Amino acid sequence: MKKQRLSKKVGLPPGSAFYTGSKTGNTVINMLVYDDENFQSYENITVEKAIQLQGENTTNWIIVKGFNQSEDLQKLADHFGIHPLVMEDIFNVEHMPKVEDLEKSLFVTLKNLTWGETDQLIESEQISLYLGQNVLISFEEKDNNIFEPIFERLQAGKGRGRVRQEDYLCYLLIDHIVDNYYILLDHTEDQLEDLEKLLIDNPTNELSHSFLRLKKNLMLLRKTINPLKEEIRYLSREDSGVISAYTRQYLGDVYDHISFIIQSIDSYREMIASMMDLLMANNANRMNSIMKTLTLVSTIFIPMTLFTGIYGMNFDFMPELHYKYSYPIFMSGLAVMGLVMYIYMKKKKWF
Amino acid sequence: MKKQRLSKKVGLPPGSAFYTGSKTGNTVINMLVYDDENFQSYENITVEKAIQLQGENTTNWIIVKGFNQSEDLQKLADHFGIHPLVMEDIFNVEHMPKVEDLEKSLFVTLKNLTWGETDQLIESEQISLYLGQNVLISFEEKDNNIFEPIFERLQAGKGRGRVRQEDYLCYLLIDHIVDNYYILLDHTEDQLEDLEKLLIDNPTNELSHSFLRLKKNLMLLRKTINPLKEEIRYLSREDSGVISAYTRQYLGDVYDHISFIIQSIDSYREMIASMMDLLMANNANRMNSIMKTLTLVSTIFIPMTLFTGIYGMNFDFMPELHYKYSYPIFMSGLAVMGLVMYIYMKKKKWF
Amino acid sequence: MKKQRLSKKVGLPPGSAFYTGSKTGNTVINMLVYDDENFQSYENITVEKAIQLQGENTTNWIIVKGFNQSEDLQKLADHFGIHPLVMEDIFNVEHMPKVEDLEKSLFVTLKNLTWGETDQLIESEQISLYLGQNVLISFEEKDNNIFEPIFERLQAGKGRGRVRQEDYLCYLLIDHIVDNYYILLDHTEDQLEDLEKLLIDNPTNELSHSFLRLKKNLMLLRKTINPLKEEIRYLSREDSGVISAYTRQYLGDVYDHISFIIQSIDSYREMIASMMDLLMANNANRMNSIMKTLTLVSTIFIPMTLFTGIYGMNFDFMPELHYKYSYPIFMSGLAVMGLVMYIYMKKKKWF
Amino acid sequence: MKKQRLSKKVGLPPGSAFYTGSKTGNTVINMLVYDDENFQSYENITVEKAIQLQGENTTNWIIVKGFNQSEDLQKLADHFGIHPLVMEDIFNVEHMPKVEDLEKSLFVTLKNLTWGETDQLIESEQISLYLGQNVLISFEEKDNNIFEPIFERLQAGKGRGRVRQEDYLCYLLIDHIVDNYYILLDHTEDQLEDLEKLLIDNPTNELSHSFLRLKKNLMLLRKTINPLKEEIRYLSREDSGVISAYTRQYLGDVYDHISFIIQSIDSYREMIASMMDLLMANNANRMNSIMKTLTLVSTIFIPMTLFTGIYGMNFDFMPELHYKYSYPIFMSGLAVMGLVMYIYMKKKKWF
Amino acid sequence: MKKQRLSKKVGLPPGSAFYTGSKTGNTVINMLVYDDENFQSYENITVEKAIQLQGENTTNWIIVKGFNQSEDLQKLADHFGIHPLVMEDIFNVEHMPKVEDLEKSLFVTLKNLTWGETDQLIESEQISLYLGQNVLISFEEKDNNIFEPIFERLQAGKGRGRVRQEDYLCYLLIDHIVDNYYILLDHTEDQLEDLEKLLIDNPTNELSHSFLRLKKNLMLLRKTINPLKEEIRYLSREDSGVISAYTRQYLGDVYDHISFIIQSIDSYREMIASMMDLLMANNANRMNSIMKTLTLVSTIFIPMTLFTGIYGMNFDFMPELHYKYSYPIFMSGLAVMGLVMYIYMKKKKWF
Repeated sequence: MKKQRLSKKVGLPPGSAFYTGSKTGNTVINMLVYDDENFQSYENITVEKAIQLQGENTTNWIIVKGFNQSEDLQKLADHFGIHPLVMEDIFNVEHMPKVEDLEKSLFVTLKNLTWGETDQLIESEQISLYLGQNVLISFEEKDNNIFEPIFERLQAGKGRGRVRQEDYLCYLLIDHIVDNYYILLDHTEDQLEDLEKLLIDNPTNELSHSFLRLKKNLMLLRKTINPLKEEIRYLSREDSGVISAYTRQYLGDVYDHISFIIQSIDSYREMIASMMDLLMANNANRMNSIMKTLTLVSTIFIPMTLFTGIYGMNFDFMPELHYKYSYPIFMSGLAVMGLVMYIYMKKKKWF
Repeated sequence: MKKQRLSKKVGLPPGSAFYTGSKTGNTVINMLVYDDENFQSYENITVEKAIQLQGENTTNWIIVKGFNQSEDLQKLADHFGIHPLVMEDIFNVEHMPKVEDLEKSLFVTLKNLTWGETDQLIESEQISLYLGQNVLISFEEKDNNIFEPIFERLQAGKGRGRVRQEDYLCYLLIDHIVDNYYILLDHTEDQLEDLEKLLIDNPTNELSHSFLRLKKNLMLLRKTINPLKEEIRYLSREDSGVISAYTRQYLGDVYDHISFIIQSIDSYREMIASMMDLLMANNANRMNSIMKTLTLVSTIFIPMTLFTGIYGMNFDFMPELHYKYSYPIFMSGLAVMGLVMYIYMKKKKWF
Repeated sequence: MKKQRLSKKVGLPPGSAFYTGSKTGNTVINMLVYDDENFQSYENITVEKAIQLQGENTTNWIIVKGFNQSEDLQKLADHFGIHPLVMEDIFNVEHMPKVEDLEKSLFVTLKNLTWGETDQLIESEQISLYLGQNVLISFEEKDNNIFEPIFERLQAGKGRGRVRQEDYLCYLLIDHIVDNYYILLDHTEDQLEDLEKLLIDNPTNELSHSFLRLKKNLMLLRKTINPLKEEIRYLSREDSGVISAYTRQYLGDVYDHISFIIQSIDSYREMIASMMDLLMANNANRMNSIMKTLTLVSTIFIPMTLFTGIYGMNFDFMPELHYKYSYPIFMSGLAVMGLVMYIYMKKKKWF
Repeated sequence: MKKQRLSKKVGLPPGSAFYTGSKTGNTVINMLVYDDENFQSYENITVEKAIQLQGENTTNWIIVKGFNQSEDLQKLADHFGIHPLVMEDIFNVEHMPKVEDLEKSLFVTLKNLTWGETDQLIESEQISLYLGQNVLISFEEKDNNIFEPIFERLQAGKGRGRVRQEDYLCYLLIDHIVDNYYILLDHTEDQLEDLEKLLIDNPTNELSHSFLRLKKNLMLLRKTINPLKEEIRYLSREDSGVISAYTRQYLGDVYDHISFIIQSIDSYREMIASMMDLLMANNANRMNSIMKTLTLVSTIFIPMTLFTGIYGMNFDFMPELHYKYSYPIFMSGLAVMGLVMYIYMKKKKWF
Repeated sequence: MKKQRLSKKVGLPPGSAFYTGSKTGNTVINMLVYDDENFQSYENITVEKAIQLQGENTTNWIIVKGFNQSEDLQKLADHFGIHPLVMEDIFNVEHMPKVEDLEKSLFVTLKNLTWGETDQLIESEQISLYLGQNVLISFEEKDNNIFEPIFERLQAGKGRGRVRQEDYLCYLLIDHIVDNYYILLDHTEDQLEDLEKLLIDNPTNELSHSFLRLKKNLMLLRKTINPLKEEIRYLSREDSGVISAYTRQYLGDVYDHISFIIQSIDSYREMIASMMDLLMANNANRMNSIMKTLTLVSTIFIPMTLFTGIYGMNFDFMPELHYKYSYPIFMSGLAVMGLVMYIYMKKKKWF
């Protein structure tokens, strides 16, 4: 993913709906209108058409993908009374996840995370949900069909979704995004297990990169999910105008999932720290054993070499050189010397 | 234990009672019906039989083991009015421990931990308790008879259990599971002591694995017990419809135990960190002493070898070679040189 | 930037408006008077003139740059009823950022941070804002025109600024300063990416300095922005006499930005810690490979050298020297010995 | 101290007063009855006698040492209405320190810590205090006379103790135990100073053990005193039925002491962490200087040795060997080579 | 400073005014009586005289230096109704800083810190302030004239001090002590900068001691100032009987200063941690470069030496020795071998 310049917006007047992401694809508006009996889906419609399709006794879900035609989106915002600051948050794809309880509407912005198969890094896409009177508008940065499974489930009439209002639909979308995080937890756990094996088998260069990648993923995951925790808890506890008591119960379940994910992230982080420590200890240990070998060899052979050097000197008067048994005696001496040093080191538990 | 895929449930509609554990064994339903005079136990009964056996003035304990026949369990849920989200939590064996105070019932889910003798790792089994009107239903993932001791104590009529209602029975089960954690603390302390001894005797490779294992166990233990603390405290303090004041006092005692366990875990963790630091310091220290030896030997013998090399050269005109006392003078010089270096290093406190 | 002596003020009576910065440039007073129709700007005016220009139905912004003529500033303080302690805070350019809700006025002091291109270190300038009845006075330490973009936007009549009161203007200035922090975040992220590349390519000395510089910048950034968080949140939530409900909404947006910046700083810090750990691991790893080479060479060649030394000795009676095939046998022996050691080390996975 | 098996109690019914300590010595009951005029002490009395001696207008202090005759203690518990769970806590000598405000009585359990001279480890003994109507019962695990000084002070009529009720006596005992912790702080500080000296003089093996011992002591100390802090603060602030306002003031003083001790422990811990870091840095530093010596010697002498080796070869045609001044030229060359390398290294600041 | 034995007081009855400092110098009592017109100072007076001098419409400041004649001080305590526990705190010079809001009086104990020029360690002196009805009594451990500047300012009639009551005087003294901490911050920053330079120039032994000293100073500073923060904030916010609203405003300013100091300490601590990490990394890095040199030299020269050894052997039948061009060929071979290894290592980026 290309790097987002955070400072892009500096100098613009506040409340300017400025899209901070990379400009790709046009804005596409789809819509779903259903109640427990009927189900209608419209693709690639205009804003005017969407406004006109909104039924009073049906559940209305307007799906906006891509932010390029911001004039159209401005019309949408004007019709449904979305505050300029909210529109700014929708367009600012670097925004932190948050839940904002406006008086008669609810604004949720969160990140859908997917696993990047090629670089093993998590990719992030911003999803915003605006729950107004009799309408739910979802804003997706890219055209990734992330809500496809929910779409299909509603169409098939499975689950409790069809007989429920927009607030339950809103829960369904949040729950779907949070459920996706579990996939990332699984990937992370796989990587962690691979690392644990590598740690024992020891090709350290591989390890460093994997560690950094894993840490980056966990940091992104935590950054994405942490701000949600308290705000989803708030939604599931407090009586707000837009969320029914029925849906609140289900949001409590989402809160449990988020808590579990955060707890898992924390224990993965701790695990990584422990493994890092062990890596250091293993490194030091291997170093020790390498140095022991070097010292062993040097300590035994260097003194011996000195003695051979002595009897390789060319002094005229070296009486030992001329005795008949000098050579065998010298060789035995050398052998004894080597043996003694070997035993000494063995005793000092050097190897 | 085979790894649980966390993402298994992704894409399912919420509230689907999907069992996330490994499918082994059938669902078995046992039941205990007793008051202070009578005690009846029934094994392997149907759901209908269980419902029919439930007495009004007796304490009724329905024991469910294994989650395979979920249609049967659905019947149970329907009869006792257990919410679909609660059923989902019971079947999701990766759920975090929690206590949920539903209005007229109480739902507790926790983990029974056992020590895996073969791999020295703690194993976890999820236990859920549903305390309803005039009934306690316990759900166990496997058929391990973990409540056997309580069963026997009730049958023998020992303790205060027999004359008390389901809420006290519920306390007894929670207390029993928490007491089991003490066994794990003892194992952990044993391992810690072994590690401390190993740290002094020093075969580091053994150590690394033990450390990682120990850390994993402590992390699992803390992950299991931490979420319980505040919720048991809440149960023991607040006036809820399902727990009597008498039982609340005993739950306060469970809270004390949990606090003690958490505190012990924290001090074990700190102990491990200290030992890890010492391991690093010891490693560096041993390395120092190895390198000292190498440097000592090299510094004394390598220069000497140079000098023997000099008088081993074959230049025609090397006057020293022909003096009579060259050899003894050279040898004495070598000895003095060695001695001086040895003393110098001794003074610098090298060994 | 020259070091500020923190202890300069010790011994002065409290409430003495003593300027703790470096004395450069004179005090310059500019003024802006505008409503939605008219826009007048005055440069380099006297205090008396400024007081006289203040209109009742217009928005009045007095801009003070440089603190040298403190008698003039005293007059300003007296006319607008600014408390001596507030004046002391304005002049003490080492003051922590803070928001003080005086009853009928508001005092805000914060830091404008700019990136020092030459030394890569962040530079800090203190900006104080005094929001009184019908007037906003901004105090800038240096003559840097940091509010130029806002000035221009107001003049051009763009944005919502012109039709709003002094409290909204105050928000505009705070928002502008906070937006500037994003530029620093971008610089920091660039540096972090450079460091990550360096870490892999490995010229460690460069790295140390960059790390220290990066850490210093992050510490300054956090020190500057952390105290603001809670106080801006307070301003955006609580009903105070000086900030209108309309402006409060926009301050909530500033609060979101500050939270995002703090979160980013925290994750950068964590990233640095991870990279530091990896640097250590890489260092140890490279060391290991260096030592392996040394040990490999020493272990193979030092024993061989001993053997050549033996047959270089000058003993008269060394029968092996005189056999015809001694030399080829010896050389083959040497080659075999080298090969065996090489294979042995290969098996021990030494290289 | 022999290790306590934490799991001893697992499987017992709750509320069983089971002594978890090591069984030594019989239960001894002493009693003190005094007012501001009279002072009577009774040793080794029966429970019945103690109950009978309890006066209405006197201060009554029953001292229980050793927990072996639990039937007797049961009688005591029954007469004074001590709850079974409280009795369980008294007998469970592994219990965490706590203060329990029962409605008309107060239960305090804490640890008396003493310095183990032989192994330098802190030893712990559990003391429980039960403050009932018109009586204070103290339970000591061993017969160590830890309250001897208070006993003597009361007998001598010194201090404010004699004219006060049981609640003040209870304060006196708590204060005495907390004061004892100061002795341990002094010992710890002594050890810390010794360690600091050792760190500079550097025999690291000694150090490791001392560090571990010190850490263990600090962990035990903190574990013992931390849980008390909030509960003593609560006692000194809240209006409870059993503690008079006069005594509360003195408990506030105990709270100050506990805060001071905790703060000291924290700064000792931080000091140890700093020293540990310095130990690592020193180790690395010493290693550096060792390796420098080795490298210095090797880099100078190994190349020289090569050159002597060259002129020690036995090739028939080596013209240099036969020149008259070859030898002095070679030797000068060797000297110059050594000097150049020495100067080069000196310049690179190697030693 | 000689070490204070913390356990000195153990065994004494509570509320005994026992001086825990070192006994030096006699108790001296000075007094200041002033209003906005008159100013009288009295030196070395008796307690009786001081009581008699106390005017009703004047500001009365009794200055007590040295705690040796505790009978005199007892008289003072009795006359002004100072509680025995407060007297105990005044005499216990190891007490933590605290602010105690007694109902009609205020007790403040804090530390005046000075920089020890000889040992670079911060020295601490305890100052207690008792603000009673119409009187402020200050207790100083030593006769250091720390309040001299305030004394002079009052005499000269400068500042707002003279027209204000004892509560403002009390603020002046607290503010003066807190301002002194800035001097220590400056010293600390100087040392930190020196360390940063040293870190780059690298004589590590110096560094270790400086680090430890710096850490000790920062720990003492934080220990001294941390407990004050919340209590000064409390004084500046809450309406208490002894502090007027006017003075509260100024105490808010002291609170800001304390916050700034604590924040600075924290960032210094973090800076030290970063520098410590860099020191470790630098050490490892230097080690790497040392070992590279050693390995380079060894890897090039040791194999070469083997080859010279081979042709230095004395076998009778070594045909190569007798060829005319053996020697130049051998020497070229040696040179090529050296060159190849050098290029190989260059490619592997070894130097």
